[in-house]
Amino acid sequence: MKMNVTQKLIKSHLLSGEMVPGEEIGLKIDQTLTQDATGTMVMLELEAMGIDRAQTEASAQYVDHNVIQVDNKNADDHLFLQSATRRFGLYYSRPGNGVSHPVHMQRLAVPGKTLLGSDSHTCANGSMGMLAMGAGGIDVAMAIAGEPIYIKMPQVWGVYLTGELPDWVSAKDVILEMLRRHDVKGGVGKIIEYYGPGLQNLTAMDRHVIANMGAELGATTTVFPSDEEIRHFLKTQGREADWVELVADEGAEYDLHDEINLSELEPLIARPSSPGNVVPVSEVAGEPIYQSYIGSSANPGYRDFAVASKIVEGRRVPDHVSFDINPTSRQLLTDLVKEGHIANLLSAGARLHQAGCNGCIGMGQAPATGRNSLRTTPRNFPGRSGTLEDSVFLCSPETAAASALAGEITDPRTLDMEYPRVQDPEEPTVDVQLLDHPLPYEEAKEVELYKGPNIASIPDMDPLHDKMEVPILLKMKDNISTDEILAGGARVLPYRSNLPEISKFAFEIIDPTYYERAMKQRSAGGHAIVAGYNYGQGSSREHAALAPRYLGLRVALAKDFARIHWQNLANFGILPLTFSNPDDYDSLGQGDILVLDNLKNKIRESHEFMISVKNSNRRIPVQHALSPRQIDMMLEGGLINWVKKNSEHAGDEVAGKREVCTACHGTGMQADEEGWQYACTVCDGKGYIVAGDKEPRIADVDRNKRILD
Amino acid sequence: MKMNVTQKLIKSHLLSGEMVPGEEIGLKIDQTLTQDATGTMVMLELEAMGIDRAQTEASAQYVDHNVIQVDNKNADDHLFLQSATRRFGLYYSRPGNGVSHPVHMQRLAVPGKTLLGSDSHTCANGSMGMLAMGAGGIDVAMAIAGEPIYIKMPQVWGVYLTGELPDWVSAKDVILEMLRRHDVKGGVGKIIEYYGPGLQNLTAMDRHVIANMGAELGATTTVFPSDEEIRHFLKTQGREADWVELVADEGAEYDLHDEINLSELEPLIARPSSPGNVVPVSEVAGEPIYQSYIGSSANPGYRDFAVASKIVEGRRVPDHVSFDINPTSRQLLTDLVKEGHIANLLSAGARLHQAGCNGCIGMGQAPATGRNSLRTTPRNFPGRSGTLEDSVFLCSPETAAASALAGEITDPRTLDMEYPRVQDPEEPTVDVQLLDHPLPYEEAKEVELYKGPNIASIPDMDPLHDKMEVPILLKMKDNISTDEILAGGARVLPYRSNLPEISKFAFEIIDPTYYERAMKQRSAGGHAIVAGYNYGQGSSREHAALAPRYLGLRVALAKDFARIHWQNLANFGILPLTFSNPDDYDSLGQGDILVLDNLKNKIRESHEFMISVKNSNRRIPVQHALSPRQIDMMLEGGLINWVKKNSEHAGDEVAGKREVCTACHGTGMQADEEGWQYACTVCDGKGYIVAGDKEPRIADVDRNKRILD
Repeated sequence: MKMNVTQKLIKSHLLSGEMVPGEEIGLKIDQTLTQDATGTMVMLELEAMGIDRAQTEASAQYVDHNVIQVDNKNADDHLFLQSATRRFGLYYSRPGNGVSHPVHMQRLAVPGKTLLGSDSHTCANGSMGMLAMGAGGIDVAMAIAGEPIYIKMPQVWGVYLTGELPDWVSAKDVILEMLRRHDVKGGVGKIIEYYGPGLQNLTAMDRHVIANMGAELGATTTVFPSDEEIRHFLKTQGREADWVELVADEGAEYDLHDEINLSELEPLIARPSSPGNVVPVSEVAGEPIYQSYIGSSANPGYRDFAVASKIVEGRRVPDHVSFDINPTSRQLLTDLVKEGHIANLLSAGARLHQAGCNGCIGMGQAPATGRNSLRTTPRNFPGRSGTLEDSVFLCSPETAAASALAGEITDPRTLDMEYPRVQDPEEPTVDVQLLDHPLPYEEAKEVELYKGPNIASIPDMDPLHDKMEVPILLKMKDNISTDEILAGGARVLPYRSNLPEISKFAFEIIDPTYYERAMKQRSAGGHAIVAGYNYGQGSSREHAALAPRYLGLRVALAKDFARIHWQNLANFGILPLTFSNPDDYDSLGQGDILVLDNLKNKIRESHEFMISVKNSNRRIPVQHALSPRQIDMMLEGGLINWVKKNSEHAGDEVAGKREVCTACHGTGMQADEEGWQYACTVCDGKGYIVAGDKEPRIADVDRNKRILD
Repeated sequence: MKMNVTQKLIKSHLLSGEMVPGEEIGLKIDQTLTQDATGTMVMLELEAMGIDRAQTEASAQYVDHNVIQVDNKNADDHLFLQSATRRFGLYYSRPGNGVSHPVHMQRLAVPGKTLLGSDSHTCANGSMGMLAMGAGGIDVAMAIAGEPIYIKMPQVWGVYLTGELPDWVSAKDVILEMLRRHDVKGGVGKIIEYYGPGLQNLTAMDRHVIANMGAELGATTTVFPSDEEIRHFLKTQGREADWVELVADEGAEYDLHDEINLSELEPLIARPSSPGNVVPVSEVAGEPIYQSYIGSSANPGYRDFAVASKIVEGRRVPDHVSFDINPTSRQLLTDLVKEGHIANLLSAGARLHQAGCNGCIGMGQAPATGRNSLRTTPRNFPGRSGTLEDSVFLCSPETAAASALAGEITDPRTLDMEYPRVQDPEEPTVDVQLLDHPLPYEEAKEVELYKGPNIASIPDMDPLHDKMEVPILLKMKDNISTDEILAGGARVLPYRSNLPEISKFAFEIIDPTYYERAMKQRSAGGHAIVAGYNYGQGSSREHAALAPRYLGLRVALAKDFARIHWQNLANFGILPLTFSNPDDYDSLGQGDILVLDNLKNKIRESHEFMISVKNSNRRIPVQHALSPRQIDMMLEGGLINWVKKNSEHAGDEVAGKREVCTACHGTGMQADEEGWQYACTVCDGKGYIVAGDKEPRIADVDRNKRILD
């Protein structure tokens, strides 16, 4: 079978399922990426699950979101993350190194590998011929623990590129063209794979721009081939040895087709307040601006800043424009400094900020109320800038710089100058110390987690009770979002590592008395909530399940659920039930007590069963959609308990279970159904152990790396 | 009389009083400086007073404190400040230009002039042969309006400098030596004047370091002569024409004496948590550090960063050290970039922050709980870093850089390298566009103030009532600080431009019900508070008077008051009374109603009078310390009303009043008691107008600039 790059990546990592669009598949994860806003909980989950050592080839923890430190919380979190990476064997990227996505690309990305990250723009590393996907925190924790990720096999959407970008048009305009054509849901259930002759004119960092904002199309991820350009990029990073070629077979097919002639593109811009509101810049030219902002993982490259520097060189932005430069990594900033670009930008009136995510996620640089802000960032959702009534446009660095100079939205083609076609430096700064490397196991296992006052371990959670009498503490309408369940923003975000504290904000927007009522009910067996359709829509934040669970939520009964929140509820041991008859929603009220009995048998035996309402004669049919694996998990009280239990017995089993390799302490050792043991896939050595062994055994292996002795 | 520099500065600006230590003197103010955290209220005060145009020679509004924008508030404030500077004829320094003190020194400081600033480190410009003093916001507003500042004539404390700084010892160690000798109250009531042969080895920026932290000694200000070094500094800034020589007369005397031999100094450090806890670095060497922080107005110079760059060049700070670089101005950052120092620092692992105040005032870079932070900033008061349980040391850039490298407190003399004695660049970057210049009057008067949702004008305040029946809403103990009256910090500071909003935090720490109770009582005639000794100690923030006044506070009755808060109460029309018999404090309780009648006559006629307690037979003798000028002000309802009233009648009077000069629109025109009119002192021209004139008249002037026609 002739395969495209996506299929090759999936096939080489397929652990379960069939590669048929819509079917569930399990994939082996080679690398993980966590950032600080999600990573603290991931590390606490590793602790709670009793994980000893990361089982991936490379897992990196970046500190890029919470780098503004107005009190102890973020700084304490950084120390905790650093101690956790030392304990669990991860890479650690300190604050100031820059945004996870470009730093990962520079230091760790390897073509042909899979990457799972607890950040929705993880897909940016698809630029490197990787299968790079964003996921919830606990999914990444599981991947670090060596477990597969389960997804529905997406359709593969081939986008054939021809031509060459004209002057004043750059990679950002390519992805804006995709958004203009297909809007923000156009990529749902799909992996976008770019191919064709146009690729040769797009650098690795250009591809990063395009892959990054595939997230805005709703795509599962974006994939580029690993070609000579990727080899060149890795060579400039001192990592040519990591290169492998990965291109589509001649004649490979795609489920869906599209084509872009790069030569025909013009400068585009997404108007407020959706990345899909794309129009030519010329259509909105002349609108006054308050801010022009260059940086973020959606324009992280050297050229993205250098071209802006060349445009403003020797000139000055008007008094009323805030010209914000957010460098994306320490390496890139160093080169921009060395090549004179930072001096140009400063002299033109720029504000130079710390390398990191910054304003892209509302951490600084928020615009004035109602004033137009032009940004090269990936998203312009309302309020994401930090300002409630914001007016954010998304565009290329060329458009942002031209508009900064003019003080109004400006098509860069109208500038009276030659296009400064900037090349990346042939010998860029390579900072091999950019990441702190994982400690050797013997040293790592002695490391204690550092927990400042803002770090609270995840408390133990009890298993599902066979009989529950749970009062309904909230009855909610349709379309409740995770923002309403647990807000984001600068007020709440610093407590992401502190479940008892962040729980105080749970459902606060819907009913400020919830927290107190739930705490009262907590030791009396917990409570239930009832909701309408599409419960838990919006952001994937797992805290929206974890915090209510901490407060005693055991049953969520809704007309239906948003997909990811449903998964989060199941992961954290909250039983997600739907009404068999949605009209029954009307018969329930706050304060009613739901009675569920013989639950363990019932959920195993059927996807539908009856619950009753105490002090009334009503019995209501409800349904669940849990898989057998999820039922096991639910009975244990959630994924953390399930993993903990399984790992306690890990040494007792052989067939189908991974074993710890004492050579590298990875769990790359496996036995298949026939009892064959394989050499460790993590260290690729011949070491293995079986239960009771103190030293690794060394064995001969066959060509499939099965152990022969 | 042979005069020192301080005496010359005071004499040339003396408008009233005698130059006898302890006597009140009135001084003409030539320049003002406001920063954004205090400036928004200053601009609202100008608006409330109906000021048309700044009357100073130069007034500059800097944006350096609130440059982290996590929501609309700071950005909206910046736009408001920009519009106000355009309206009132001020210079405007946009965010990213840097900290007020070094920028003012670079662009506007002029030897021989007076500078009043709403920032306690305004004294830093004493380095330039200026009389530069910090003051409350409304004092600066009055100075902008052309009014004198009234202070008690301080003692002049001559510090004779000899010798030359040894290797690894720099200006910071000089001021730390002063703090070691005299602690944080050693300078109270004094102006410190440095002189002697040691001066020739201290650059203008070195002197800035020393003058800046004179504030930490409690001094009124610090003064350096304007000598050849200052001429050189101004020349490098393209402003040699602004130089005048200002040195002490041979044989001039000082009220107090001290002497420092620079050659005998060693690296010093202030331990947590007072700038006065100074010990030799060697005494604390070896203590592990979390953070090393270089920058702020207490080490703003090129050399301060360059020497750190040279120390860390080619090396790398350990993983656990947060090495924070906070550049102080756009000009300096540009030079540091051009000369390769920023690249050195980045490669060594530094986090490069935006030019501004940043961590020095807890706006970012807060350290982890309880971990040691080494800073070149001026203050290490508990919690000022933003972290409640902090542990901040103050030291030189040499000590900070050496300690960053070692990961522990390190005496820089123990480094195995030659001392990198860095010189300032001979031709530094001069950014003449760094400040937006005042608009011409004709244009300025058309400018409308921009008020985003976070800007609220100061509401009208009613005059003092002749009879008041005011309930006591709070009874407080001794030593209540302005922090308890109105907190600072990132939660409250963004509301500094919004009196109705910030008032919600008034007395919140003491009694959270105060706000609600005061609001209820507000339209019923207001209320009183009672306090013990030293009421209103601590920070000079005027909001601690303004916010309670907004909520209806009319009478503050205490055993005694801290000086600045007493002044603020009077300025905002709150009657500050003390018990004639402190024991009467015990007889009053929350809820008692104080009755004050025939008040207007009583406060004019005597400094002591009786008040009564309603529903009891008690009458209590109380005292006030208001001057006749302050009584006028109090009767009008505060300084804002007083200025507004006087300016309404400004055109009606001649003798002793300033008049607007139509040539420059300054109020430099004056008439003396004899009716002589003087040529405009602002534009130094011969233009003048009298009431009813439409065009300026031009006149011959005598050698005293009195108009002869």
